[in-house]
Amino acid sequence: MDGLNSLRADAGLPFLLQLDNVARYEDGKVIILDRRKYPTAIEFVTCNTYHEVARAIAEMVTQSYGPWAAAAYGMASAARSVREMGTKKVAEELRCAADVLSHARPTTSSGMKHHIQRVLAASLQALDEGRGVEAATLAYVNELLENRYRKDRQTAAYAVDLLPDPVRLLTQCYAETYIGFTLLLAKEAGKQISLICPETRPYLQGARLTASVARDLDIPVTVITDNMPGFVLSRGMADVFLCAADVVTLDGYVVNKVGTFQIALAAHQFNVPFYVTRDPSPSNPTIQTVEIEERDPQEAIHAMGVRTVKEGVQGYYPAFDITPPNLVSAVVTSKGVFSPYDLHKTFGSG
Amino acid sequence: MDGLNSLRADAGLPFLLQLDNVARYEDGKVIILDRRKYPTAIEFVTCNTYHEVARAIAEMVTQSYGPWAAAAYGMASAARSVREMGTKKVAEELRCAADVLSHARPTTSSGMKHHIQRVLAASLQALDEGRGVEAATLAYVNELLENRYRKDRQTAAYAVDLLPDPVRLLTQCYAETYIGFTLLLAKEAGKQISLICPETRPYLQGARLTASVARDLDIPVTVITDNMPGFVLSRGMADVFLCAADVVTLDGYVVNKVGTFQIALAAHQFNVPFYVTRDPSPSNPTIQTVEIEERDPQEAIHAMGVRTVKEGVQGYYPAFDITPPNLVSAVVTSKGVFSPYDLHKTFGSG
Repeated sequence: MDGLNSLRADAGLPFLLQLDNVARYEDGKVIILDRRKYPTAIEFVTCNTYHEVARAIAEMVTQSYGPWAAAAYGMASAARSVREMGTKKVAEELRCAADVLSHARPTTSSGMKHHIQRVLAASLQALDEGRGVEAATLAYVNELLENRYRKDRQTAAYAVDLLPDPVRLLTQCYAETYIGFTLLLAKEAGKQISLICPETRPYLQGARLTASVARDLDIPVTVITDNMPGFVLSRGMADVFLCAADVVTLDGYVVNKVGTFQIALAAHQFNVPFYVTRDPSPSNPTIQTVEIEERDPQEAIHAMGVRTVKEGVQGYYPAFDITPPNLVSAVVTSKGVFSPYDLHKTFGSG
Repeated sequence: MDGLNSLRADAGLPFLLQLDNVARYEDGKVIILDRRKYPTAIEFVTCNTYHEVARAIAEMVTQSYGPWAAAAYGMASAARSVREMGTKKVAEELRCAADVLSHARPTTSSGMKHHIQRVLAASLQALDEGRGVEAATLAYVNELLENRYRKDRQTAAYAVDLLPDPVRLLTQCYAETYIGFTLLLAKEAGKQISLICPETRPYLQGARLTASVARDLDIPVTVITDNMPGFVLSRGMADVFLCAADVVTLDGYVVNKVGTFQIALAAHQFNVPFYVTRDPSPSNPTIQTVEIEERDPQEAIHAMGVRTVKEGVQGYYPAFDITPPNLVSAVVTSKGVFSPYDLHKTFGSG
């Protein structure tokens, strides 16, 4: 793992973990794996403009780390679209793109804004120095993504240290590099690991994505429906509940795919540790700074594209929930393992 | 509600609550609504023998109260099939049918056995007295079903008394007459009631059945996925968690559709009362007498008939879970409202 190429082409990585299969940039286009269809179909959505990238993110073509990669490449696409215009117009367009891409989904928007602002700064600096903005943006984005992979691998290494051996891991939703590297490194460390994935309705990321990554790594994996984690925990069938998060606030709250909270509650009830892998977000000092995204209610009343309810029945779809620090055993970060109550000491900006 | 006819034809009852739409008996055939397809399609499965009835129950053509009605009618079907045979053969066949029908599904089998034994006794008595066994069995079954409806309506009346006004009710799975009459009577009592239904994977009984009954009664109803009840409760969006149960043991444990336990845990966390409607089962004095049914794992890795996971990924499907008495606010029965710790006093056979 000493260069980006190995992430893109390494046959040892599960399909979903190879960066090219998350999102890639080709001549102004951002090409994103359609995670709504995987593994039934392997299809990519091609976005020709940053607006199309933002729409693809809003429409859940990709999720977890996918939006971070896609949005960053969207900045390169924006740069290319105005390459023949004057400096002022280019700067304007880049700022506009940064704004649109940052706000594609509300819950992650503060972290995403920070991420995209860094890309924007690199683009504007290249513009200022008279270098090719598209190429400079792309190089910077690739560096960012590679660093992120390195960081997540480091986080996963700390997580693996926490796991008993053998270990039956319960997770939630799809935690991308976090869960992928955790499984990979646990296996490399010779730990006997198996995985239980709640399917994670309505998009079924647990069934379709997480279970696929485990399968690619030849790790035994069992999928349950989202009403079963409590039972599984009550029967002592899981040793650890481990998932990533969309946001970890500096005051120790975990914002993750809806369902995480009720699993954490059951884990707590049965003294099963709950580990969260992700660096806390300095832009979210308290839980009050996080807005819970409510998505299209139609999604909750359809399964695999088929409507599940009678005419006139409403749906409701809060995409995330909040797990308070008293239910979190530890937050596993790229800087090591922390109590949820101690995050501000290491990650606070003050 | 003074006769069975009103249950069968009363236009005021929601479609699913009309007995003819649960199961009915016609010339030796047991005709069962296919609840796996409702409300997308209204289709009935016709069973020509008691074996076909048992298979239909095992295959989840019907659930909740449906198996009790279908199995009871299955006894009439058995009686008809041997009507031209000698007394000894008829008795043998009836005993055989009772055994097969009682064990169609394991978790409810002790209660079902008790239920079917009563039907068997009526059939054998008619045989003994030289009366027509099919007609006598059918008359007895109809009386049983009518009494059950009356009893469940009484239970629902006690439940309605417990509800605040207005009330936002959270439920789980499909509780047939219990939830149907609770909604109906709450409305009749002028209470402002709305309902939140977790969809209840893998069969989606919450989305397909419970929400349909509420809709038929013009009660506002919202469907969520099974990972959302914890969030809904954390946001104060439900005033009461109320569901029925497949078994309530005399020591106060609630055995119900998997997911009930984790909702009860979250309700407890936020001081939302959890009411269970059902008479405790004298044949289940303790929780140790209940076997949790594990169903075909394939069901957990399919949604609306479509496979959700990659080749080689396993599924797991425990059909029920167990909620301990400390999470149950009250058990609402046909004899009134009880603490889960007091059930043995009134319902114990000793």
